Order: sequence, then C-alpha cells, then structure tokens
Amino acid sequence: MNLNSALYTDLYQLAMGQSYFLKDKHEISATFDYFFRKNPFEGGYVLFCGLEEVLDSLEKISFSEDDIHYLEAQGFDSNYTNYLKTFKFTGHIQSMSEGEIVFPFSPILTVSGSIIECQIIETFILNSLNFQSLIATKASRIRYIAGRDKSLAEFGLRRAQGFAGLQASRSAYIGGFDYTSNVLAGKEFNIPVSGTMAHAFIQSYDDELTAFRDFAETRPVNCVLLVDTYDTLKKGVPNAIIVAKEMEARGEKLLGIRLDSGDLAYLSNAARKQLDQAGLDYVKIAASNQLDEHVIRSLKEQYAQIDIYGVGTNLVVGKANGALDGVYKLCSFNNTPRIKISENLKKMNFPGKKQVYRYMNQDGQYIADAITLDHLDTPKTMAHPFETHKRMPIEYASVKALLHDVMIDGKRVHTKKTTLELVKIAEENLSKLPVEHKRFANPHVYKVGLSPELEQLRDQLKKEKLDS
Amino acid sequence: MNLNSALYTDLYQLAMGQSYFLKDKHEISATFDYFFRKNPFEGGYVLFCGLEEVLDSLEKISFSEDDIHYLEAQGFDSNYTNYLKTFKFTGHIQSMSEGEIVFPFSPILTVSGSIIECQIIETFILNSLNFQSLIATKASRIRYIAGRDKSLAEFGLRRAQGFAGLQASRSAYIGGFDYTSNVLAGKEFNIPVSGTMAHAFIQSYDDELTAFRDFAETRPVNCVLLVDTYDTLKKGVPNAIIVAKEMEARGEKLLGIRLDSGDLAYLSNAARKQLDQAGLDYVKIAASNQLDEHVIRSLKEQYAQIDIYGVGTNLVVGKANGALDGVYKLCSFNNTPRIKISENLKKMNFPGKKQVYRYMNQDGQYIADAITLDHLDTPKTMAHPFETHKRMPIEYASVKALLHDVMIDGKRVHTKKTTLELVKIAEENLSKLPVEHKRFANPHVYKVGLSPELEQLRDQLKKEKLDS
Repeated sequence: MNLNSALYTDLYQLAMGQSYFLKDKHEISATFDYFFRKNPFEGGYVLFCGLEEVLDSLEKISFSEDDIHYLEAQGFDSNYTNYLKTFKFTGHIQSMSEGEIVFPFSPILTVSGSIIECQIIETFILNSLNFQSLIATKASRIRYIAGRDKSLAEFGLRRAQGFAGLQASRSAYIGGFDYTSNVLAGKEFNIPVSGTMAHAFIQSYDDELTAFRDFAETRPVNCVLLVDTYDTLKKGVPNAIIVAKEMEARGEKLLGIRLDSGDLAYLSNAARKQLDQAGLDYVKIAASNQLDEHVIRSLKEQYAQIDIYGVGTNLVVGKANGALDGVYKLCSFNNTPRIKISENLKKMNFPGKKQVYRYMNQDGQYIADAITLDHLDTPKTMAHPFETHKRMPIEYASVKALLHDVMIDGKRVHTKKTTLELVKIAEENLSKLPVEHKRFANPHVYKVGLSPELEQLRDQLKKEKLDS
Repeated sequence: MNLNSALYTDLYQLAMGQSYFLKDKHEISATFDYFFRKNPFEGGYVLFCGLEEVLDSLEKISFSEDDIHYLEAQGFDSNYTNYLKTFKFTGHIQSMSEGEIVFPFSPILTVSGSIIECQIIETFILNSLNFQSLIATKASRIRYIAGRDKSLAEFGLRRAQGFAGLQASRSAYIGGFDYTSNVLAGKEFNIPVSGTMAHAFIQSYDDELTAFRDFAETRPVNCVLLVDTYDTLKKGVPNAIIVAKEMEARGEKLLGIRLDSGDLAYLSNAARKQLDQAGLDYVKIAASNQLDEHVIRSLKEQYAQIDIYGVGTNLVVGKANGALDGVYKLCSFNNTPRIKISENLKKMNFPGKKQVYRYMNQDGQYIADAITLDHLDTPKTMAHPFETHKRMPIEYASVKALLHDVMIDGKRVHTKKTTLELVKIAEENLSKLPVEHKRFANPHVYKVGLSPELEQLRDQLKKEKLDS
C-alpha cells in the first residue's frame, strides 16, 4: 500500500475538487489554518509533533495510474481525472517548529495554495498531526512526572492501533521517552531500542534459575531479568541475585530486574532491600503494568524504588482521549479573509492570513501568545479571543514569531531535522513552559489573545455575514 | 517503510531469540494462544477481525539486508544474525474465522512452530488483531443500535490514529458499516466510498445557494448538501430545496442533506417537515457530529428523522477503550503443556493445544462455548473456568469446532477471503448471537467453560508448579 498516494484523503475532498475544477475555480488561491480547540488529557498544552512526516509526504504525494483508474471507476469526470494525473502539491506552508509548545486556537500550521491542492491534502495533514501531537503530549506528561533522573521505555506496539504503532514510538521519543521496544521504529527513526524478556522464555525452562542463567550468559549487556513469573520475592529476586553474583564473577554486571505485576510500590521496596543486602545496589528496578502519568505519580508518592518505567498501551493510544480535535479551516480565499459563522463564538475561525507571537519574560519563560494578522508588528496589547470585553497589555522581555516558512512551491525550505534534534528542541521548549501549565489538575490557562486588528476584522466579517 | 519487515516486533523477542539460538533451543516446538480477557465497551462479545492481514504478512515476513545490518549494529551475535538472514515463518496456524463472534478466555488463534518463529511474530499478531477486532466490534454495536434500515458511513480518517486509519476503515466495514470516506482504504479493500461536502466549499462562495447549485450541477449523482454553514433551517434547508427542485427539472434527484451541528433530533425533524412540505420526501437526511452508539440510541429515542449516520472519531479510535487487551501465551513447549502461575486464577493460561466448540440451539442461535483439549470429543458438560465448583451440562441441537487450520508450513490453506465475504460472514454470525449479549447495559455473560479434561490438566499443572 502506497502511503504517499493522494488517495489518502476523504472522498469529499476529491468531490469538491471536481466541482472546483469543472467550474474553473480550482486554481484560485486559498489559505487554511490547522489548529485545535481543546488541550487533551485535561492538560495545559500540546507538544506539536508530526511536521517532518507531513513535509516528507507532501513532497511525494501523487495519483498513480492505478489511483486514476480507481477514480474513473467511481464516476469522476474524465477531464478532471486527466488533470489529477499530473497533480502535485506546489503550495506554501508556514508552520511552528515540530517540538513547539502550542495552545488552543492558535494556528499551528497554515497551507496556502490553489484551493484544490489545499483540500486534497487536508485529511492527511489532520490524520498525521492530530495523532502524533497527541502522543508526544502524553509522553511529555509522563516525563514531567517521572523526572529527568528516571529512564522511560515505550513498549506499546502490541496494543497500539495497528500501523499507528510506528508513529507512536517516534512521537513518544520526541515527547521525552528514552527508548522504544519497537525495532522497526528504532531503525526507521533512529530511536534507541530496549527490551527485557517475556514470561514465555522462563516458562520454556523447567526452572526460573536456569532460564535466568541462560539469558544472562547469552545477552550479558543491558540484561534485565523478569522476576514475577512464579513468586517475585521468594523466587524471582533471589534467583536474579544468584545470577547477578555469577555475572560479577565473570566481570559482568546485571543491569536490572523487572516487576510486571502485583503491588509495584511494595514489591519495588522489598526487592530493593534484597538487592542492596546482597551488595547489588547498582542493579536497577524496572516496572511495568498499565502505567501512565497518574499511576507513576502515585508510585512516586509511595516512595516506590523504581528506576525504569515501561509504559505501553496508555501512552501509545493516547488514553483517555484517543484523538486530538485538530481542525483545518479556510481563512482566506482569493486573497480575501473568510469566516465561518456559528452561534458559538468558539466555533468561528479567525479570518485572514496570520502570525503568532510568543512573549517571554527575562528568564526566557513563556508568558503569552498573541495571534495577529500577517505582516503586522508585534502587538503590545491583546484581546481575549472569546470574552470580548477583556483586554490585556503585554509586558515582556523578548518575543518571537512562531510561524515560519517550511515549504515553498511544494519544496522543503530547510533540511529535514533528525529525530534527535527534535527531541532536544522539545525538551528545551518544555523547559520554558512554566510549571503551572504542566500540572495535571486544573492547569493554569496559558493566555492566547488576539491583536486589535485581528479582533476588528473578525467582528467586521461576522457582522457582514449576519447582516447578509 | 516495509511493513512486512520482521523488525515489526519488540526488541525482547529478538533478544530471547538470540538466547534460544545460542543455547540451541530455537528449533524446539511451541504453541501460543491468542486470546483476550475482557470485552471492550462494557459489551458482551468481540467481533474477530484482522486475520487476513496477519496471514498476508506472515507469508512475506523476512529480514532485509538492511534489517540485518541494523541488528548487527545493535550488538546481536553474528551467528544469530546470519541465521536470521534466511528467516521465514514456516509454522502452523489454527484460527477462528475472521468475522467470528468471540468471548473472553477462548483461544481465537493459535500459532505452532519453532519457539523462535512463534516469538518473533507475536508482536505483529497482537498489534494487528487487537486493533482490528476492537474497531469491528465498535462498528457492530453501532450497526446494532442503528438498525439494518439505516445507512452508516465511516469518515474518521482525519482523527484516526495515523496510519491505523486504513485498518480502521476496513474493520468498520466488516463490522457493519456501508461506506467509508477513506478513498485509499476504499481502493485497497474494495469498500464502497461516500462523501458529501465541507464548509470550506460553501465559504469559498459569496452565498450558499450558488455553492449548492454549482456542486449539484457538477456532481449530481449521490449529491448531499451540507446545510449548517450559516443557518440550518432559515438558509441551508430552504436553499437545498431550491436546488432539489432545479435538479428535478433536469430529471435528477438530490440524494440528501447533511446536518453537522446543533440539536440533531430537533433539526432533523424540522428539516424533514420542510422537505416533505416541498414534496421532497425522497431526500434523505444525513447527520454527523461526535456520534457513537450511545448518541445514536438517544437520537432514536427522540424520534430523530435521520437516514444516514456519519461516524468518525469515536468509531475509528475505539472509544472509550482504545485497545483490546489481547495476549499471546505459551501453552505448549516441546509438546508438553505449560502454565503460567499467578495468584489470580484469571491470569493463568489454559495449558496444552486446544479446540473450542460452539453449541447452538434448534434455531442456530449460540448457547455456549466449551474449550477442550485438542483431538478430544465434544464435551457434554463443562466447568466454569474460574469458579471451580460450578458445573454445567450442555443441552444443544448442533455444535461446531471453531478453530481450524488456516496456515500450514507457513502457507495459507485456503484462498484469501474478500472483504465483502467477510462482511457477510460477520453479519450472519452476529445474527446468531442472542440479543441479550448485544445490549449495552449489563449484557448477559455468554457462557464459556472448560471440558473436564482441560480443567483437570490445569489443576494438575498448577499443583505441580506450586509444589516445586
């Protein structure tokens, strides 16, 4: 299956494309904004992820001969399918950096091009960015609560949503995880891989000790022994200690043991004591079993002695949300700002081509973002986006524009960033987000406002539409 | 990215593989069971989905030269990586049919082969079957509540979990949906595609009526007009009626209108009235906006006049679960039954190679399933799997074995089923599941029991392990 096929879209994009084409409107210029309305996980931010994949695909997207035949068989007009044969994305994309911290209602990525190309690529952009940003955000929350001194390993592939497991592993790494168990993702995205052993390995032996011995002998580097197959404290840990001592005698060191069931807080403390009493204070304790940021917080509160957290399902499927509500809305057509009317002000989009400025204090910490019309100066005051009577002067030490050119005429402007570069960018950005926006319960709402000119344009267009 | 790479696995499978290989245990025969422990969605069953994809992949799975280099760079032993160069899956798979109704703790698919091949393919099997069964099950619940006379369209690609969107569309179709908006999935899996129009199309015009006119003129077949861009009842529906009448004058028929916001029960009734008064009783009403089985149930309770339900996010991400808890457990090694001990009887596996029998009443409705040891006759009584004092005689009119050979020596036994064949199989199987197992609130628990011989084997192995 060719994932760069332009058929990776919703049928209605192609149906609207046909109408634009047959009415000779398809080359009219348009701009669409990608943004979301609600932070996932009842949190205070989103970590933006997936841009490089989108740019990769947009450089390659096309309809194969096969794809064209399929569309003809679906009853599409032959002049139109003939046009699609040479379809390429030739538009202009401005975006925030992958690894940027983003907030509701700010345009994160904007696509400008002919209306037809903007529509055909919509579905893929949403599919890619919504999911990867969701998972990177989840991962960053787990890193936040675990702390920088713990190791975090993602091993969700078996419960991931099918092929999404590959994107999940990359997103988890960018969000702050150290390792993945997903070998294909490790290879494709250059993510450090890690893994321990399964119960089946131990069950394939008559006894646990021989299983541990054989495993340690054949894989001494980064060896982690799973100790809960029969009885964690009475059999598993004592057997691991025997093997660790045998490894010492060979000049090797056991990396750790893994707990995968039972009361992890209690077992980790008891296992730590047994290991320490055996002089094995260097042997780490890894734990897994339905972990997420909330369970890890609870384990830390109970002084669990865990060095390595293995997180699977809850991370890679982005529980409890499962989806980020990102949307892609027309804000300009034929170089004229456009608005969609709704009874709910929050459901209206901000018209026109825009820029987002981020304001920082003297420590470089993020204070507020202002959305303004493109090519205007940094605003000094901003309006609340929906509570129209609220105004705020902005006091700041420095400011930066967040949207910058990433693709012009369908070609990347900069070289592709490596996954490791994105990890560093995300980590630095997260360090600039004040802690009150990171906490889990009722995080402080980060201020995103409108410049006076943008607010005025919205109000004017709204009035015109309602009067018409 | 090659999705048939044998690197589509967890690192620990390859690490255990190395230990088996270096200890010359890798060719020892093993059998693993795929099963799950808990029905998703607080429901009463799972619709099994994903088998054909698994068989496709197992026929092709291998390590490329590139993959081997990657493993060498990860420090794997060169004798072992040399062995992996010619790795193929050559094992034996027994499975229930794709589209079968399955219940907790029954083996759904079993893999027999050398221990090393069984382990390497574990992760992909879980990844593929867990997700697709989850989505097919969700889809079947939506079909159940919507009824057979409604049309169901899946259009979740924009919020699907990345590439999983392709598998989700196929699974939704097998679970009972009529259409997908996902064009690539439509082409690859031969699923009927459908689509309407987006707000952006209407916004690209100065007025809604011209937008409707142009769309209907350029796409008259299966034309559905989106009526909520400005004001559903005052503008959208009246404009759609004008266009429908113009279509009638050209000898065409408007298929429908779509509601995408607001109170769908109220709006659908008001729109129905306007359409009927205009003599347009053939124009259907489609509705979308965060639908799932519970919202559709509520809409039906309110006598909403909706003919076509469009379902997206909640279906394709399998809300609220996000994952099926399927596992893959060693039940036989070197032709000897194996068990994993746990304090919790539910966490122990059923040892040995097994068969599952399904009992039916004189109407062909499913009554109960019995898990038994392979090659034994149909049991006439069964034991509760965990409440060990409970016994049940089985009264039935007919019985069938559910596990059958699907792959021998790494090759498919039968030709691949088409997606449409699977749709029919699933529909027929669902029709045989009594309604009390389909209801949403506290569904009746379908009885799955153990044959006396299997219960005895489990108890004997448990005792041996605990005594050792």
